[in-house]
Amino acid sequence: MTSDDGVLQLTDLTREFVREVVLPLDDAFDGDIAAAGGDELRKDLQAQARERGVFGAHIPVEYGGHGLNLSHRAAVFEEAGYSLFGALAVNAAAPDEGNVHLLEQVASPEQRQQFLAPLARGEIRSAFAMTEPNPGAGSDPTMLRTQAERASGGWRISGRKAFITGADGASFMIVMARTSGEPGTPGGATMFLSTVDAPGLEVGRHIPTMDRSMLGGHCEVTFDNLFVPDDGVLGNVDEGFRHAQVRLGPARMTHVMRWLGAARRAHGVAVAATAAREGFGTRLSELGMVQQMIADNEIDLAATRALLMEACRELDAGGHASMSTSIAKVFAAEALYRVADRAAQLCGGLGVSADLPVARILRELRPFRVYDGPSEVHRWSIARRAVRAIGESGR
Amino acid sequence: MTSDDGVLQLTDLTREFVREVVLPLDDAFDGDIAAAGGDELRKDLQAQARERGVFGAHIPVEYGGHGLNLSHRAAVFEEAGYSLFGALAVNAAAPDEGNVHLLEQVASPEQRQQFLAPLARGEIRSAFAMTEPNPGAGSDPTMLRTQAERASGGWRISGRKAFITGADGASFMIVMARTSGEPGTPGGATMFLSTVDAPGLEVGRHIPTMDRSMLGGHCEVTFDNLFVPDDGVLGNVDEGFRHAQVRLGPARMTHVMRWLGAARRAHGVAVAATAAREGFGTRLSELGMVQQMIADNEIDLAATRALLMEACRELDAGGHASMSTSIAKVFAAEALYRVADRAAQLCGGLGVSADLPVARILRELRPFRVYDGPSEVHRWSIARRAVRAIGESGR
Amino acid sequence: MTSDDGVLQLTDLTREFVREVVLPLDDAFDGDIAAAGGDELRKDLQAQARERGVFGAHIPVEYGGHGLNLSHRAAVFEEAGYSLFGALAVNAAAPDEGNVHLLEQVASPEQRQQFLAPLARGEIRSAFAMTEPNPGAGSDPTMLRTQAERASGGWRISGRKAFITGADGASFMIVMARTSGEPGTPGGATMFLSTVDAPGLEVGRHIPTMDRSMLGGHCEVTFDNLFVPDDGVLGNVDEGFRHAQVRLGPARMTHVMRWLGAARRAHGVAVAATAAREGFGTRLSELGMVQQMIADNEIDLAATRALLMEACRELDAGGHASMSTSIAKVFAAEALYRVADRAAQLCGGLGVSADLPVARILRELRPFRVYDGPSEVHRWSIARRAVRAIGESGR
Amino acid sequence: MTSDDGVLQLTDLTREFVREVVLPLDDAFDGDIAAAGGDELRKDLQAQARERGVFGAHIPVEYGGHGLNLSHRAAVFEEAGYSLFGALAVNAAAPDEGNVHLLEQVASPEQRQQFLAPLARGEIRSAFAMTEPNPGAGSDPTMLRTQAERASGGWRISGRKAFITGADGASFMIVMARTSGEPGTPGGATMFLSTVDAPGLEVGRHIPTMDRSMLGGHCEVTFDNLFVPDDGVLGNVDEGFRHAQVRLGPARMTHVMRWLGAARRAHGVAVAATAAREGFGTRLSELGMVQQMIADNEIDLAATRALLMEACRELDAGGHASMSTSIAKVFAAEALYRVADRAAQLCGGLGVSADLPVARILRELRPFRVYDGPSEVHRWSIARRAVRAIGESGR
Repeated sequence: MTSDDGVLQLTDLTREFVREVVLPLDDAFDGDIAAAGGDELRKDLQAQARERGVFGAHIPVEYGGHGLNLSHRAAVFEEAGYSLFGALAVNAAAPDEGNVHLLEQVASPEQRQQFLAPLARGEIRSAFAMTEPNPGAGSDPTMLRTQAERASGGWRISGRKAFITGADGASFMIVMARTSGEPGTPGGATMFLSTVDAPGLEVGRHIPTMDRSMLGGHCEVTFDNLFVPDDGVLGNVDEGFRHAQVRLGPARMTHVMRWLGAARRAHGVAVAATAAREGFGTRLSELGMVQQMIADNEIDLAATRALLMEACRELDAGGHASMSTSIAKVFAAEALYRVADRAAQLCGGLGVSADLPVARILRELRPFRVYDGPSEVHRWSIARRAVRAIGESGR
Repeated sequence: MTSDDGVLQLTDLTREFVREVVLPLDDAFDGDIAAAGGDELRKDLQAQARERGVFGAHIPVEYGGHGLNLSHRAAVFEEAGYSLFGALAVNAAAPDEGNVHLLEQVASPEQRQQFLAPLARGEIRSAFAMTEPNPGAGSDPTMLRTQAERASGGWRISGRKAFITGADGASFMIVMARTSGEPGTPGGATMFLSTVDAPGLEVGRHIPTMDRSMLGGHCEVTFDNLFVPDDGVLGNVDEGFRHAQVRLGPARMTHVMRWLGAARRAHGVAVAATAAREGFGTRLSELGMVQQMIADNEIDLAATRALLMEACRELDAGGHASMSTSIAKVFAAEALYRVADRAAQLCGGLGVSADLPVARILRELRPFRVYDGPSEVHRWSIARRAVRAIGESGR
Repeated sequence: MTSDDGVLQLTDLTREFVREVVLPLDDAFDGDIAAAGGDELRKDLQAQARERGVFGAHIPVEYGGHGLNLSHRAAVFEEAGYSLFGALAVNAAAPDEGNVHLLEQVASPEQRQQFLAPLARGEIRSAFAMTEPNPGAGSDPTMLRTQAERASGGWRISGRKAFITGADGASFMIVMARTSGEPGTPGGATMFLSTVDAPGLEVGRHIPTMDRSMLGGHCEVTFDNLFVPDDGVLGNVDEGFRHAQVRLGPARMTHVMRWLGAARRAHGVAVAATAAREGFGTRLSELGMVQQMIADNEIDLAATRALLMEACRELDAGGHASMSTSIAKVFAAEALYRVADRAAQLCGGLGVSADLPVARILRELRPFRVYDGPSEVHRWSIARRAVRAIGESGR
Repeated sequence: MTSDDGVLQLTDLTREFVREVVLPLDDAFDGDIAAAGGDELRKDLQAQARERGVFGAHIPVEYGGHGLNLSHRAAVFEEAGYSLFGALAVNAAAPDEGNVHLLEQVASPEQRQQFLAPLARGEIRSAFAMTEPNPGAGSDPTMLRTQAERASGGWRISGRKAFITGADGASFMIVMARTSGEPGTPGGATMFLSTVDAPGLEVGRHIPTMDRSMLGGHCEVTFDNLFVPDDGVLGNVDEGFRHAQVRLGPARMTHVMRWLGAARRAHGVAVAATAAREGFGTRLSELGMVQQMIADNEIDLAATRALLMEACRELDAGGHASMSTSIAKVFAAEALYRVADRAAQLCGGLGVSADLPVARILRELRPFRVYDGPSEVHRWSIARRAVRAIGESGR
């Protein structure tokens, strides 16, 4: 934990680092991390981040980070997210950031040693292998079909995964597989840790998604009799879904922090563009319809930040915050996309081109309404909680 | 200032008082305060509130209140707003609540004695006479046309006002009049204190607005050579607009608190209605489109509350909070209306009838997008601040 | 059928009649038909309409009307709807207008003689008794619980209805009752014709809905062993739902026509108000945010009219037009409300008062999203048709 | 002009051609026309189109087309637009299609011979050079800065253009340049015809916009003392803006037709995806929130088509249709994007990938809210017309 002053300083340093070092690369390669250098670039940027003292705001101090809680890291991550490569540069990108958190909470000492330590220090990358192609686990995780069968001294896993972020180049994966129950029923899932070079694990093609800033892509992965020894079980057998909850709430919120930074950049660029161009007898920024879009962006950014902070405070206080993180996630995913969309509109033709960063922020943001639970699933969950809380009494 | 425990307790007591005592009257008279008893009812309810210790969360302790800051009073006022008569019952209704705040900040000791003390204690009511009929001060306050001319020992005021809330039955008014400059230019306004029985002041008809819960209505007022002595000037001559800012930010926020309570009630009633009715083979609350409306209501309520609290903390810390109160006000006015509108839809036919409270909450909420600055004026102001802050640099 | 010229002329005459004769009464009584004179007023206005040749655009020529098809009557009904009393004045108000259509299609010669003829001539009024209180037929008509039992020479009906428009003062009702099957299953409904003075039929209280322009209110009705002889069955036993479809499509479209007129009036009043008021250094109608609202109103009005005409052409060509009338109804109900809502916003304080007609048009329009099938039920039906049509092939 | 039967047949043939021949290429190259083969592909596809009799629905019969009016070509173009390469394949893509129309209306016989004939027959391509980089003509065309100076026997043109669609590979351009007046004032523009190989005309880089289906890209173009002889003036000197109106209305509508086809495809793919996947205990297409998105898509598609047809009928009848084409354009650009956006959401992860066509339709559609007049400029124009029509009278 760091003092408020320390947090402010780290935020400032992160802002400087991102703008001076990271942003020029982001702009030069239109946010395409592979084209910009991939893993080599990542290592180089993380080395610079370490030197400047901005590495790992969320990472435990013992691994070279700052150990900030969620409330404190919010502003830091927002500054990192200002560039599409910023989070990666400070080792705060998905899915590694969420995996660090999960391993901290659930891993055994040996697992921490083998997987958490090098991951937290930025020596390796990781993936979280949960979602599956039709008819498996998609929006509805209970449809999980990847099967883990008991074998001597461990488990044999078979099945197919899809949209496994960061899989290409990852050193290990956390694999969700069914150890009991049937697809369509809750429970029965277990998390396993496996190195990627284990026999029977194959990382397939990158699914050609519209976003390009996630190192290691969104891959197809196949398990064909993959053996995981008993000490590779993460947490308890059959409690995979429950353990995943530990990762879920905070991971949603750090996503929001990062995308908030990106949307803020799109907004800033757009406001500047309207302040710099004339038409209809005045600066564009003086036109009422333009002002309306600018104001709506400010409102959406402020409301996202306010909901984010509410949820972070609840998480930091030890709550599950299932309701407040769902609310913040679904609001943010939609509001930040609106911000980027209005920003594109404000910039006119340049707003839909790579000459400004707005179009690529729009492209990168769109999947956020789908990843980490589509908006519809969050709404379903929010409504069920509300109905349970209010019941027929009307509260 | 009260401790957090004290605030929680006051919130609970207010909730109980409102639900046991106030709500039945609200429901019996469809939120029509005149039909329910008008000023007699107010006095009776305030006496009960005093007995139960829930009078005046915002009112200085010396006048019998609790002296809570804005952050602390938020939950209390939300509970009061749960009934359309609740704020009145604890002497926290507009415009008196805002006038208490303004007088506390700006009034001279004699003015406090004469006007603030009895107002705060609930002995009298007040009005704030700012807005004028076309072509005077409406959305654009600089159009102010009511004129104050120098006279021996004071001022002579002439002009017309419209939509003066609470004017009928008020004991005094704060009158905004022009002491210099021309309509359409900033500055030149002064605030005056005048008793309502002063010669030359005439309270005219109630403008027949759709809302019916505001005691004293929204009236037309005429000043015909109304004399106000020099010691009736509130604050400084020509600084009326600046002084009004003192009232504006907090008054917006307390509006939001009260309407938040009302919208929450509409939502609760609607959720209960869908949980209690069947159709299409299940409970209505299990249908996806119904769940979407319920979730959107939860999101709108949470975002309103989060923005409100951000602004309150900024105000309590001594900031002007012009940006954050504008953002919270415009978001709340629109979001809470959406909540009530969805609630009506969820209740079907009963939702547009007086058999449930939803339709009347919808009716009372609609003007909030117009009163205290229409959404468009707030957006204009938010955009101008954003453009100034971001400039051509893109931030 | 009338020529295009004849239609234009009837449209012009209707416009004149409504503006000269009907609108002043609407404005004088804030759209409250009971306060304005109720059935006496109706008869007086219809007499004048007959004199001016604008009575019953949709009514068969043999009963004194013009016999226009739906496409032709659209513009005429829009002009009628310009006043909240306009449709009533030309005998084109719900539910009589839809009942005339239904009886034309389904009634026996004797039934036409007894019920259709005097209704079409405006001598009497009628009601359509379908919806029921919880747990009966609401959004989901299959929940129908009113029961008709075989009796000697006819049927005995018992049950409760709610929101029966126009029931108070009606001479007869079309009653939907279950003759077979269970609540929650499709089919098994039959339509019956009963005079209102029949023993066992009781019209109860007016449900206090927000709208006030519908003559005869929205009433509760009770059937206690109401006897209907066999020749009072309208159409065939057990085919009530199918027969009701005959009424449904056209009735939705004539609703849209009428509300289109009302929304157009709100828009026109609002545009005029912004053109007549200054602020922020110009006419309000020159401000960008105001122009945006005006433009969005024009777009919503144009899209409503375009969808309406598509559906009317399909109905006139003999199609069921279930998809296109659902689409036009749900779009219109939402779009026209947006129009009225923006109109209120454009008018500022006066927009939420009875000094302008906007607030009352807003109030009258809100229930349209609930009546004649809530938007959600229409969307459900539209989606099911789409899925059926497109299937898994992707079209 | 063709009979209704002929139109239906052409529509069917176009549908078959597009699905059998064009769509596979579109899908194989993710809608990237350059990658798919560029101009070679165009010629090959147009040859096949000619063979199948589906070439040039809008092109005069003398040039090998069908000469359909706008109302008749709507369905044909919608079928063409079903593939992103479809319009190009039948020589109906922008900007050539609009240029054919403009030249038909305004060109001299010699100009028709030299430019229109080969363009209509698909032998060459063209561009329309109007928009300029900041501070020139963008949303506000009156900011035009490209200057044409009188020279012996013609004009000398200097200036810079941006976003000139199809410029790379075009044989000639229609150039808008200022012949009188100052930037910021209406009037003073003239249209010139110039071959692209003329000295002083240089086609620069492709601006890297998000869309990739427009052959020849969106280019920067520089004029440096480009000479155009007097007979290269298109229409009259100083009447360029007026002549451009001729092109504008129809060109907007054919854009809408094409994009309607693309959006319809996205919708169809999405509906099929939800019908083919299970979760939450049922097919996704049975879930309420999914049904809501499907229904909203159907509504948006139907309303777009209805507004389009209204405007086409008005244009075919000889009207300018400025209001109705603006309304149809702005509604379509926003509604069709919503359709594609919901389609992406309905498809989940695949919806934001190139494995389905939805993400690329989303990408191609976004600029339509900017090109051919941003939505804000259309709204401004619609509002001004409405205010003029309604005035202070309220209509």
